[in-house]
Amino acid sequence: MSGNTLGTVFAVTTFGESHGPAIGCVIDGCPPGLPLETADIQRELDRRRPGTSRHVTQRQEADQVEILSGWFEGRTTGTPIALLIRNTDQRSKDYGNIAQSFRPAHADYTYWHKYGVRDYRGGGRSSARLTAPLVAAGAVAKLWLRQQHGIEVRGYMAALGDIDIPFDDWAHVADNPFFAPNAALVPQLEAAMDALRRDGDSIGARINVVASGVPVGWGEPVFDRLDADLAHALMGINAVKGVEIGAGFDSIRQRGSEHGDELTPDGFASNRAGGVLGGISSGQDIVASLAIKPTSSIRTPRRSIDVDGKPSTVETFGRHDPCVGIRATPIAEAMVALVLIDHALRHRAQCGDVEVATPRIPSQA
Amino acid sequence: MSGNTLGTVFAVTTFGESHGPAIGCVIDGCPPGLPLETADIQRELDRRRPGTSRHVTQRQEADQVEILSGWFEGRTTGTPIALLIRNTDQRSKDYGNIAQSFRPAHADYTYWHKYGVRDYRGGGRSSARLTAPLVAAGAVAKLWLRQQHGIEVRGYMAALGDIDIPFDDWAHVADNPFFAPNAALVPQLEAAMDALRRDGDSIGARINVVASGVPVGWGEPVFDRLDADLAHALMGINAVKGVEIGAGFDSIRQRGSEHGDELTPDGFASNRAGGVLGGISSGQDIVASLAIKPTSSIRTPRRSIDVDGKPSTVETFGRHDPCVGIRATPIAEAMVALVLIDHALRHRAQCGDVEVATPRIPSQA
Amino acid sequence: MSGNTLGTVFAVTTFGESHGPAIGCVIDGCPPGLPLETADIQRELDRRRPGTSRHVTQRQEADQVEILSGWFEGRTTGTPIALLIRNTDQRSKDYGNIAQSFRPAHADYTYWHKYGVRDYRGGGRSSARLTAPLVAAGAVAKLWLRQQHGIEVRGYMAALGDIDIPFDDWAHVADNPFFAPNAALVPQLEAAMDALRRDGDSIGARINVVASGVPVGWGEPVFDRLDADLAHALMGINAVKGVEIGAGFDSIRQRGSEHGDELTPDGFASNRAGGVLGGISSGQDIVASLAIKPTSSIRTPRRSIDVDGKPSTVETFGRHDPCVGIRATPIAEAMVALVLIDHALRHRAQCGDVEVATPRIPSQA
Amino acid sequence: MSGNTLGTVFAVTTFGESHGPAIGCVIDGCPPGLPLETADIQRELDRRRPGTSRHVTQRQEADQVEILSGWFEGRTTGTPIALLIRNTDQRSKDYGNIAQSFRPAHADYTYWHKYGVRDYRGGGRSSARLTAPLVAAGAVAKLWLRQQHGIEVRGYMAALGDIDIPFDDWAHVADNPFFAPNAALVPQLEAAMDALRRDGDSIGARINVVASGVPVGWGEPVFDRLDADLAHALMGINAVKGVEIGAGFDSIRQRGSEHGDELTPDGFASNRAGGVLGGISSGQDIVASLAIKPTSSIRTPRRSIDVDGKPSTVETFGRHDPCVGIRATPIAEAMVALVLIDHALRHRAQCGDVEVATPRIPSQA
Repeated sequence: MSGNTLGTVFAVTTFGESHGPAIGCVIDGCPPGLPLETADIQRELDRRRPGTSRHVTQRQEADQVEILSGWFEGRTTGTPIALLIRNTDQRSKDYGNIAQSFRPAHADYTYWHKYGVRDYRGGGRSSARLTAPLVAAGAVAKLWLRQQHGIEVRGYMAALGDIDIPFDDWAHVADNPFFAPNAALVPQLEAAMDALRRDGDSIGARINVVASGVPVGWGEPVFDRLDADLAHALMGINAVKGVEIGAGFDSIRQRGSEHGDELTPDGFASNRAGGVLGGISSGQDIVASLAIKPTSSIRTPRRSIDVDGKPSTVETFGRHDPCVGIRATPIAEAMVALVLIDHALRHRAQCGDVEVATPRIPSQA
Repeated sequence: MSGNTLGTVFAVTTFGESHGPAIGCVIDGCPPGLPLETADIQRELDRRRPGTSRHVTQRQEADQVEILSGWFEGRTTGTPIALLIRNTDQRSKDYGNIAQSFRPAHADYTYWHKYGVRDYRGGGRSSARLTAPLVAAGAVAKLWLRQQHGIEVRGYMAALGDIDIPFDDWAHVADNPFFAPNAALVPQLEAAMDALRRDGDSIGARINVVASGVPVGWGEPVFDRLDADLAHALMGINAVKGVEIGAGFDSIRQRGSEHGDELTPDGFASNRAGGVLGGISSGQDIVASLAIKPTSSIRTPRRSIDVDGKPSTVETFGRHDPCVGIRATPIAEAMVALVLIDHALRHRAQCGDVEVATPRIPSQA
Repeated sequence: MSGNTLGTVFAVTTFGESHGPAIGCVIDGCPPGLPLETADIQRELDRRRPGTSRHVTQRQEADQVEILSGWFEGRTTGTPIALLIRNTDQRSKDYGNIAQSFRPAHADYTYWHKYGVRDYRGGGRSSARLTAPLVAAGAVAKLWLRQQHGIEVRGYMAALGDIDIPFDDWAHVADNPFFAPNAALVPQLEAAMDALRRDGDSIGARINVVASGVPVGWGEPVFDRLDADLAHALMGINAVKGVEIGAGFDSIRQRGSEHGDELTPDGFASNRAGGVLGGISSGQDIVASLAIKPTSSIRTPRRSIDVDGKPSTVETFGRHDPCVGIRATPIAEAMVALVLIDHALRHRAQCGDVEVATPRIPSQA
Repeated sequence: MSGNTLGTVFAVTTFGESHGPAIGCVIDGCPPGLPLETADIQRELDRRRPGTSRHVTQRQEADQVEILSGWFEGRTTGTPIALLIRNTDQRSKDYGNIAQSFRPAHADYTYWHKYGVRDYRGGGRSSARLTAPLVAAGAVAKLWLRQQHGIEVRGYMAALGDIDIPFDDWAHVADNPFFAPNAALVPQLEAAMDALRRDGDSIGARINVVASGVPVGWGEPVFDRLDADLAHALMGINAVKGVEIGAGFDSIRQRGSEHGDELTPDGFASNRAGGVLGGISSGQDIVASLAIKPTSSIRTPRRSIDVDGKPSTVETFGRHDPCVGIRATPIAEAMVALVLIDHALRHRAQCGDVEVATPRIPSQA
């Protein structure tokens, strides 16, 4: 109800603020018996950790995760899995100058009005730091999806500002701090970020996520369609302003005879649907794309007001990512994985484990 | 859980198939004492009714709504409001030729695999006809939003295929079958639709929705952000493939110094955020945009397979909209209204009716 | 949220008032492919129908159910099943004299204060008539439980006022209007009811429900324990004031060495637990017992107040059951069946269809 | 879905096992601005803490609670409140002898079958230790109920085995380890417990809870009635086998003319309803009673089976409460408080903060 839980069967409730003692989450509904080690979670957390290159915030959060429950002798037990990450590098003093003013494009203003009280130390609950518990929960989801269904959920940066990054190969993604799938573009991305940092400004990005191996039949028919729940989860990531599935906004200009993916005995002939038909997975790759706005906390002075409505000027000197999109890839993957595992379990709740009909069609040509 | 309920406090559960005896919905959680007449609902239903121009399906569904409960002496009682719409023009025989094959880009294939059984008469549960109960429920939501908060939720067609429709005036929207906010473009839209119909093909569209008068403070902070729930609701409309809030995908190329809406004592200086900051309404207009794919049921023959995996050819001779986007505007408005009323009630559940802090800032310049 | 939905996977939302046009429910989440005919539902409705003996209300409601959706060619489709029952015998005038006063022990007073508006024609939403849609939904649940797991859910009257009814045989239950499992007691029950009717008074009753064949492992561990959800469902039946599982209140005086059911290679040696251990079914019979208060609408004049707080006298001349417990057996069975199917589906959501461990122990000696 | 969350608006998700690193909970939906200190929570935890008298388990758990989030400068912020309690006194070796066998009347057997894996160190997730986070969450609920509505939720032991404890005065409850409201009975209770401990056996108890000051109008009309949700919460406490509201099982033998509480201009003339009519609070005291079974872990040897189905004998030498009812009073109070705050917030979600109608009747004579 109050918006801190994602999912219905595999339900992840997060807690914490950027400058409180700790952040974390409780996963309720994880299937029992899943082999799981702390390292499986830590590996994903390390992918989105700050301070790993000069292009991201220089905060040094260890982001060490501790499994508090739901785990026994190397396996999940079916009871709630609580994951705890202590906050260690909180320089609250950096934020003193914005305690009384609202950063433009930031949640300061809306939180203050909603709750009548605001944790003004950093982003508080609205901080992108709160994506860490999501990545941790997503790591558990990914393990199950891979183990049970051979599903891989992978993302990459498809554009940084006006630099489009053509997909070359998944192999490149882990080799650069941008999660760019194209090694040739990396120098250009680095130069762009260096220039931006000198300007004290920020920029947006596009992230694509692909889930392969998803069986046909996951998703609900009217409201909680697989694509609707993906849109909900992805639009719920900090700074996301748009979500596309498959052909996305290009569909507007397409004719039905062009857009509709034909079926053949060897599988679908194309995938403009992005792997979802009528809200239910078709067996093809699930393809989602998201638009991330530029970071709101920038060094460039901006007009604002204070809590009394008086004009003020805001410059943010905290250690912020000049492009939140750079660390967004593992977060977007986690969100897709969380939606998929939840729909997998929802599907078997109503329709059972056993496939109700054997798909006779290879899902991907 | 099974995806037929939207909302948490103002919860709408729909039922029905395109060719069953009836469709409808149950609204649970409507505030008591709201003045409501059947005509208030019928008016909105008539806006999306088929058969009203040559550009939409020629099915003649009266779409007469009956209020079965939750209503007494001209007011809502706080108990569930059941709305019933009998199906009257079901020509099931039109669909006989697709009972054994799957229409490309349609839910036929995925439903059959999900449930192991499929109501092959028309779209069944996946039919766009099922948006009628949503529009009916949305009518109730709109009434409350207007009465309690002076909120108006209005939409329009912003593009039909590659014809962009620049916004001129809300006054035009009701004067043409396209919901186009620009009278000058209407002849061009009509010509395009006539050509399309001759070709037996279909086309996509872009719909924009604007909600004005929304107070600051609605929306939840992490998962059920107002923008995330809007994305969920809008992506849940049949044929939608993309959703944007505010600047949307343009945010990718914007710098923080350009994107971030500055605050002044007279209000925000711009609205690239689309009225949502940190997932919570800012008091500015809520602005959402959606991409609608071309109708999948077209007369042009297409390759497909039958239930045995054998190749087949599908042509659809039923009475389908050549552009589902044409009737999508009232549906998109309804979805936005349903999300808003739900968040209004969720907000007062946790934070109370009384504004916790008096917004000292006019929300819109 | 607003209390008109029972269940999470197999979710039943009811609607309607005693004197509105219709009552009914929507079942979302029913597994697809279940063979179902209208007669299967009608049979259960007829068991709780009014007007079938002189001991119950003489209202003549046909309670004819219509399946509006979720059903195709004799099977459920997995989409929402809407069930509609038109109200036919509403003598609203009978209730005129209580429009301005509150019947003692009735929901009149609380509804009026909660909602600020009250449908004063009969019980409105609080009427026991609203148990009809539950019985209808329960009929679907019973079918699935029987077909998939061989589960039988059966109830009987265990006491009428101070007449205890010792269990003799299930065979008697269908042979008398009291659902008494003991033919010898029936004349005494009839005499008691006749005397009560002459007195213009009402009386309470005890109903027991037994579910046999429930496999080990259904139920959740902390809050939504199987026994907790049974208590929730059974206490949610009109007029219920107490619920026991297994030994119930007798447990207070039992020692651990007496209460705890020992396990043997041939099964449990006793069933004081009532088939639930730690909130999870043990494979033994699920045994629940409920206390039903006397009907609040009686002919005996009672002190009350009117809506202005002035003293008044209330006598109810409508056609009420002198013992609502008489028709409560099929309702209680339905509630137990609804809880069981929901937990069956919840269990397989998290733990899968396949039994995670083969119970090596016959569950019942 | 998986049963570890209680409540809808004020939603408490617990985690942890008796012998894992920590237990705790996340409260989502707490109203912002509530004054709260760690000591407010610790005080309630200390009331149910083990090791405080010779009549309860001699485990020495400090049960020190840490507030991890949702709290800033002495007030709640409206974001999730995570509460952490480290486990400190876990003597896992005490449980070695039951790792392969199932304790009679314990959840061992059902957990093992449900999940296929079992944390055999103590009760694991089914341990009564998991009521500590509930008491902690209940402390927050009590604060809000008292501050906003002047509501007091108080409980006491009404029977220990066959010793009935007549209510004398609330003042006695805090002065003895049994929460007995009658000082004269305490020596008898102590003697009974000493005898029981010598016997290596256990006994049941009855706990009553009274909530005073609850306004009229809380509760939902059909399924989530206030009494149904109380039954759900109270039956969800470890070892509870029965729940009564108001007259409870005595209602069976009462006539309508006796049971129904008459209304007068000075308030209700009696309270057999236990403060709930039609599922909604009447403004009278809410009165609930629960039956607690004897502890299942006893020193007396009992027949059981091992995981291979072979016969075994189980004696439990761990440090268990010989009557779990002794520490159940603060737990039962917490559960009632959690249900009340949730319904308070649910009520204002749908019906608003302002009372829709001014109750003109003093709620209690």
